[in-house]
Amino acid sequence: MQYETKRRSILKAISWRTWATMTTAVIVFIFTGRFTLAITIGFLEVFAKMGLYFLHERIWHRIRYGKKEIPSFVLWITGLPSSGKKAIADAVYQVLLKEDLKVDRLDSRDVRPFFPETGFTPEEVHRHVKRSGHLAARLEKNGVIVVASFVSPYRESRDFVRRLANNFVEVHLRTTAEACEKRDAKGHYRKARQGEYQYFPGVHVAYEEPPNPEITIDVDTTSVEEATRRIVAYLKQRVMNEKKAKPQPASPRLEQSRPA
Amino acid sequence: MQYETKRRSILKAISWRTWATMTTAVIVFIFTGRFTLAITIGFLEVFAKMGLYFLHERIWHRIRYGKKEIPSFVLWITGLPSSGKKAIADAVYQVLLKEDLKVDRLDSRDVRPFFPETGFTPEEVHRHVKRSGHLAARLEKNGVIVVASFVSPYRESRDFVRRLANNFVEVHLRTTAEACEKRDAKGHYRKARQGEYQYFPGVHVAYEEPPNPEITIDVDTTSVEEATRRIVAYLKQRVMNEKKAKPQPASPRLEQSRPA
Repeated sequence: MQYETKRRSILKAISWRTWATMTTAVIVFIFTGRFTLAITIGFLEVFAKMGLYFLHERIWHRIRYGKKEIPSFVLWITGLPSSGKKAIADAVYQVLLKEDLKVDRLDSRDVRPFFPETGFTPEEVHRHVKRSGHLAARLEKNGVIVVASFVSPYRESRDFVRRLANNFVEVHLRTTAEACEKRDAKGHYRKARQGEYQYFPGVHVAYEEPPNPEITIDVDTTSVEEATRRIVAYLKQRVMNEKKAKPQPASPRLEQSRPA
Repeated sequence: MQYETKRRSILKAISWRTWATMTTAVIVFIFTGRFTLAITIGFLEVFAKMGLYFLHERIWHRIRYGKKEIPSFVLWITGLPSSGKKAIADAVYQVLLKEDLKVDRLDSRDVRPFFPETGFTPEEVHRHVKRSGHLAARLEKNGVIVVASFVSPYRESRDFVRRLANNFVEVHLRTTAEACEKRDAKGHYRKARQGEYQYFPGVHVAYEEPPNPEITIDVDTTSVEEATRRIVAYLKQRVMNEKKAKPQPASPRLEQSRPA
């Protein structure tokens, strides 16, 4: 929740006054040719108007007109383990941060440690992805842009997030398990093949490709820089550029008999 | 993410100019006694300075100095079923909304419908409360004030939320199961006693009172209005009034071997 301090208004009054009084003095001098008159009027103006300007700022600080929200969205990057989700998500996040946008970064490995009891069976992965997606959508509803990176191998839980979000931008990193295994410096695929992990997408369970993602990136032939550029361009043209943000739907509210 | 439109700056330029030019004209008239000169200088000023003012606004729009954040917090209202959590939380929420604060309202029954598979065993209640608390803390981290109302009968999961939040304000609605049952218009306590519900706090499982809540309200002897007044007073004096917001700690990041 942002507000403007009185100090800011005072500084603005001084900076404006310097600029404006010089203009007045020059105009008076041109018209009257009298240098001292120009200076005297300029001098009086400084005091009279500095106070008025401060007052003017404080009044406008309370007026909401012309204070607009940039539409927020959930950017959801999905793909096999070691497909490069984190690198691309981090790069997009940095670009948005630099543009001074209110943006949060949600990575699967930032959420899981809080819920160590949630494992990797399909049911638990659904729970993990739905929990994170619900969070992402709620942040979006509050004006926060979310850059999320999750393997999220199952269509059902990704679609759950899509339904909850207002502006959902699904980015599919297209590749093969073989290519990912080559990139996999930490040997997760090997461990999965050796049975150390179960339900590993690409090894034990299928990664269900999104049927209609907003953006598809062939990571085996696309650099992180190029992927970032394409995603940011899409966001600027198709999401953030809307003259009016889509109206925020009221949070869906379902009926339930037992008190929650 | 808020920004100021050019339209806002134009309107401010016009409103300021009206005010300021009249001042200049009066000053020039007092000093020279020449009415037409005063009007001419005022007239020229209108054009010269309107443009300058607009420019001045656009420059300041990019300057962050003096734009402050009001500290956000998680207000967590806990108590037995039918202790009056929702009424008090709604009232506090309305007060904060009216003050133009960025605030979100989180009620247990707004979260549960998204996760219908989560029931009411202690384990499932922990999962529900932790999921909601994680969400609340993440909203808080992004500058959103959260007003949450959850039975949250178990200390463990409430403390989980306390650890995640930066400013955690726990409000305990103190009462007895008997008093709640009298207030309970929907007959939930009766259903619980008849075995229709299991693990019902106050009937089958104990409500674990918070040992050190920030605020305790004896709801049997306190009106909703009085409770709201007390909570808002606490928030203003102890949380939102901090001259400087506590530094936001970096999101805790735990290690994990398997990719998330």
